[in-house]
Amino acid sequence: MFSFANDYSEGACPKVLRALVETNDIQAAGYGVDEYCEAAADLIKRAIGHDDVDVHFITGGTPCNVVAVSALRAHEAVICVESGHINVHETGAVEATGHKIIAVKGKNGKITADEIRTVMSEHTDEHKVKPKMVFVSDATELGTIYSKKELAQISQVCKEYGLYLYLDGARLGNALVATGNDLSFKDICDLTDIFYIGGTKNGAWIGEAMVVKNDELKPEFRYLIKQHCAMLAKGRLIGVQFLAMFEDKTYLDNARNADIMAQALKYIFAQFSIPMYIDSPTNQIFPILENRILEKIKRNYIVTEWGPYDKDHTIVRFVCSWATRKENIQDFYNDLVAYVNEN
Amino acid sequence: MFSFANDYSEGACPKVLRALVETNDIQAAGYGVDEYCEAAADLIKRAIGHDDVDVHFITGGTPCNVVAVSALRAHEAVICVESGHINVHETGAVEATGHKIIAVKGKNGKITADEIRTVMSEHTDEHKVKPKMVFVSDATELGTIYSKKELAQISQVCKEYGLYLYLDGARLGNALVATGNDLSFKDICDLTDIFYIGGTKNGAWIGEAMVVKNDELKPEFRYLIKQHCAMLAKGRLIGVQFLAMFEDKTYLDNARNADIMAQALKYIFAQFSIPMYIDSPTNQIFPILENRILEKIKRNYIVTEWGPYDKDHTIVRFVCSWATRKENIQDFYNDLVAYVNEN
Amino acid sequence: MFSFANDYSEGACPKVLRALVETNDIQAAGYGVDEYCEAAADLIKRAIGHDDVDVHFITGGTPCNVVAVSALRAHEAVICVESGHINVHETGAVEATGHKIIAVKGKNGKITADEIRTVMSEHTDEHKVKPKMVFVSDATELGTIYSKKELAQISQVCKEYGLYLYLDGARLGNALVATGNDLSFKDICDLTDIFYIGGTKNGAWIGEAMVVKNDELKPEFRYLIKQHCAMLAKGRLIGVQFLAMFEDKTYLDNARNADIMAQALKYIFAQFSIPMYIDSPTNQIFPILENRILEKIKRNYIVTEWGPYDKDHTIVRFVCSWATRKENIQDFYNDLVAYVNEN
Amino acid sequence: MFSFANDYSEGACPKVLRALVETNDIQAAGYGVDEYCEAAADLIKRAIGHDDVDVHFITGGTPCNVVAVSALRAHEAVICVESGHINVHETGAVEATGHKIIAVKGKNGKITADEIRTVMSEHTDEHKVKPKMVFVSDATELGTIYSKKELAQISQVCKEYGLYLYLDGARLGNALVATGNDLSFKDICDLTDIFYIGGTKNGAWIGEAMVVKNDELKPEFRYLIKQHCAMLAKGRLIGVQFLAMFEDKTYLDNARNADIMAQALKYIFAQFSIPMYIDSPTNQIFPILENRILEKIKRNYIVTEWGPYDKDHTIVRFVCSWATRKENIQDFYNDLVAYVNEN
Repeated sequence: MFSFANDYSEGACPKVLRALVETNDIQAAGYGVDEYCEAAADLIKRAIGHDDVDVHFITGGTPCNVVAVSALRAHEAVICVESGHINVHETGAVEATGHKIIAVKGKNGKITADEIRTVMSEHTDEHKVKPKMVFVSDATELGTIYSKKELAQISQVCKEYGLYLYLDGARLGNALVATGNDLSFKDICDLTDIFYIGGTKNGAWIGEAMVVKNDELKPEFRYLIKQHCAMLAKGRLIGVQFLAMFEDKTYLDNARNADIMAQALKYIFAQFSIPMYIDSPTNQIFPILENRILEKIKRNYIVTEWGPYDKDHTIVRFVCSWATRKENIQDFYNDLVAYVNEN
Repeated sequence: MFSFANDYSEGACPKVLRALVETNDIQAAGYGVDEYCEAAADLIKRAIGHDDVDVHFITGGTPCNVVAVSALRAHEAVICVESGHINVHETGAVEATGHKIIAVKGKNGKITADEIRTVMSEHTDEHKVKPKMVFVSDATELGTIYSKKELAQISQVCKEYGLYLYLDGARLGNALVATGNDLSFKDICDLTDIFYIGGTKNGAWIGEAMVVKNDELKPEFRYLIKQHCAMLAKGRLIGVQFLAMFEDKTYLDNARNADIMAQALKYIFAQFSIPMYIDSPTNQIFPILENRILEKIKRNYIVTEWGPYDKDHTIVRFVCSWATRKENIQDFYNDLVAYVNEN
Repeated sequence: MFSFANDYSEGACPKVLRALVETNDIQAAGYGVDEYCEAAADLIKRAIGHDDVDVHFITGGTPCNVVAVSALRAHEAVICVESGHINVHETGAVEATGHKIIAVKGKNGKITADEIRTVMSEHTDEHKVKPKMVFVSDATELGTIYSKKELAQISQVCKEYGLYLYLDGARLGNALVATGNDLSFKDICDLTDIFYIGGTKNGAWIGEAMVVKNDELKPEFRYLIKQHCAMLAKGRLIGVQFLAMFEDKTYLDNARNADIMAQALKYIFAQFSIPMYIDSPTNQIFPILENRILEKIKRNYIVTEWGPYDKDHTIVRFVCSWATRKENIQDFYNDLVAYVNEN
Repeated sequence: MFSFANDYSEGACPKVLRALVETNDIQAAGYGVDEYCEAAADLIKRAIGHDDVDVHFITGGTPCNVVAVSALRAHEAVICVESGHINVHETGAVEATGHKIIAVKGKNGKITADEIRTVMSEHTDEHKVKPKMVFVSDATELGTIYSKKELAQISQVCKEYGLYLYLDGARLGNALVATGNDLSFKDICDLTDIFYIGGTKNGAWIGEAMVVKNDELKPEFRYLIKQHCAMLAKGRLIGVQFLAMFEDKTYLDNARNADIMAQALKYIFAQFSIPMYIDSPTNQIFPILENRILEKIKRNYIVTEWGPYDKDHTIVRFVCSWATRKENIQDFYNDLVAYVNEN
């Protein structure tokens, strides 16, 4: 069985693994205040072209989201699209911190500046929550990406209304190297108040790098990390990994491999006239498969059934990662030919 | 100025006020374990035809909702319609207890059994919250009411999936006496696991009567009331009021007056061919008013602007209560004639 | 049976009841933004000699405490004495908002400036909570009162460390009129950041008046009230009551009656050489009673057993209120004579 | 500089590191439902002699504690000693889930059965929280260990009162191999309802193994893990590590090395008549050092200053781990000789 189920099926990418092994026996301070974390933070600041930010290393994506939201006051709420990770796939972790999520429809997994305006026009007194943060993810949960113009419009409306713009970058690398993307690391930092650069889904063993730009959000941020189970005792391990990925091009190279492999899959499906549920340029694609084909695929491949399309078809998610090889794609192509041609 | 803004603009109805005055100097135990509360609970049990329930007196509607939801486990969630009070008008009080609200579209302010099924089909593993309670209100926030068939279907699907059915009865009296209603107090208790009978909006000074039927929800319920700021030190005062309203027909009479007066208003609007945003048989009605007429009304009346309808019209909420008199309606009719005929 | 169990056994004091009846039929805006609340707030501002404060009317004592603490950031904590109401008698309501209480020993129910200093010296990094608020009550849960010097020292240490000083004034009246008290309403406001003036235990039906002085705590405070079940739909009712109690001397007169009656009880116990567990100058006293005497008392009086003293004695709490009459004390004296003389 | 600051200064022990490297490229399911986790759970069940338990792999110690407490109902509380990790060093993470911690004095870092009884006798109605869980750690935060008799007494009182007994085993290995210990893995499971076997502090990179024995706590436990940021996307990594540590004697061997090295340090201090603050048989020791000696030590060693002892002495914590070598101890001995002899 080969798994296209997600981008965290393997361990660490070779460079990261090597760094972990090499530094394994060296003593370092606990909880992310060691020299590796410091050096990694410096590299990240350079990559994003901002020196006046705080960089924190956090155990995972849900912890990042929870910590970011926990910076709000008790009555403040987060706006996000219905398909947003915090709204769907985190078992109510954000609400467990006491904060409401205001979900809007969005388009192709993306929120629009107009939707934010509408929410603000509807939340004007103390009988409703006060929206204070906008959550976006790039790439989105549907593999789509924000254009610079879209993100700038969102950023603008956030400034108007005093909203923090928070970007979940679990797959930020995949967005930045995608065909058609016009955003850079620096743009992301310019346009948001706080965001994270995902490690787990892009070649790290574990860990994400949270970047806090807005000065209001900086004070005592480490208290929030500790309180919400997001701080690692052996914090140095996340530092070591980001150091390995940012001291050269590894971080973006990992993401590029993932995107290219997924787009190759997309090309294969197109050859069989298999349509896509949504047009994603990143490492997640969503073909609409005939159920009889899907059944055959599942003999040899692990994939995610995203939901029913109609009675004969299913929306399926295929994900590629830094670890996906050309051979995996070639094998899949050969298998698909066989599946389609079987009686 | 006369206010049609809500049904809690006055103090208590005469019978309740009299009871409060008469018992004022008598000593009673604190926190709702006194003889008045006990006697009122007995009357309520008789009214609903269930003896095997626990009745608790609680300070208000939001406290009732918060306490009910706080009985859930940490990862459990509540399903309700988008327009549900807990989802909109309680400043995130439910989420502040850590629980997610899963909002569905609904129809005319009411949730359908099918919507509940859909939610259940989409929440099947530990990466999403576990839906465990369904919130309905009767009358709804839009003044509409559930039919016995509708509520029975919802009750049925809740049983199938192990969901608690909770009914917010802030305006339960208004629902039960509405034209077209086929539900009784007993039906409400038969079909739900927990519900409350509203006092604040039906002639009481403050207070609601929570009825807990499901045995799973009964143990240590008073701990939840105390913890969530929902227990009154002078708890006897709520007991005294419900005693006064349930020892004769006062409770339903109050509600009936409110409904009749609101329906009279509806009739008046119909005479001027002013359409309704929604067809409500209870004490809240929602005419779609020309803005120029609305401006004139606002000279002498306090009403609630529910939202814009189009550029020339506004949806307006008029609410009647136990305190609304025929003269108020007659005056409004005369004024409306004048407003329409001006210029 | 006569009850010395607490100071909320009766309804409202005559003046408050009269005001409630007289204003009952007048329409007013909901949620505490009506003219009665406004007028009452003005009187309170005058009484405390501060015009630059926000006054909010809240349903009860626990709601006040919860709302005050909910103004803190997620990782911030409250310091209080072990016997503090929030630490013992509120079913974890403060922790239910997510905040830790750091309890210190205290002396006679009062916290000392030195204890606060010690806590601050022990909480210096992100692996512990950050203390941000100090909770005091005056009168305390043991009936004792703070001297001006004591409260000024606490206020000073709070300023040094950037701590908010919050005073629970459930029995503030009883403190201010007590023999030996040297604090005024104005001192209380001068020395704290936020405090409340208790109504429930001093002649009101329900309700407390929260005074927010520190500008950091003012913004969007009503959101916190609403979210934590502390806002009354018919908010005018609390306004009406405080108006009645503060437009003349009623508030302090109620408290004075309570203190005088309790001190008369203390004098009676002294005549029988019955010692006190603690020397309280307010309306709660704590005699150490022989169990055989206690049993006799309980035939005709409801009192609170505070805890065992030794195998033959029990610490008992007697509370007087605005409603306690000289005749009640005289009756108790006569009964006690009889109990003691029974062989 | 050499660090005796804690037992998580290095990466993973050699056997664990090797296992991580060897399995790195193999695909596995996410979130801890893979074959490595399954196999590790089987080994743990065998080690503890219980087959009817659920084993979950969790990211760290604070996450374990938070998840365990989050299984309680809203009004339920945890009893623990003042020095307990959840009460001091987790930034209020437990309270952030809404639950109160009731702290008792304890003795040598250990809670007694009598203290639990006292708490229960004081918490009997709905105006206080309901104690429902007892938290113990073994080894404790002061390095001490529970005897079988002590733990059995605690277990017994928990059964009497319906309390869950939860054991924090961050340093369970260190306790089980300590001189004087008479508890086994099986005893721990026999006597508790839920406990965790610590990995982070005993040779793993990250991760702990939570064992849920009580059937009431088992259902939907993974929802609680996910919601509280305690689930790892690449969950297999924790499984791989525990597999490596439990397929032979590595787990206990790691702990034994740590204890032996720390006890060797203790022997060294004794030779210089340097007293201990507490008599710990495990891998943490607490010498009371003259400040002038401490200053010299700090030139070459990182240690933790636990607190002042008197004006000339400081309580210092030295921790050894699986990674501490005899040479490190020898070096320290040589250095200490020099420090002491420097005039």
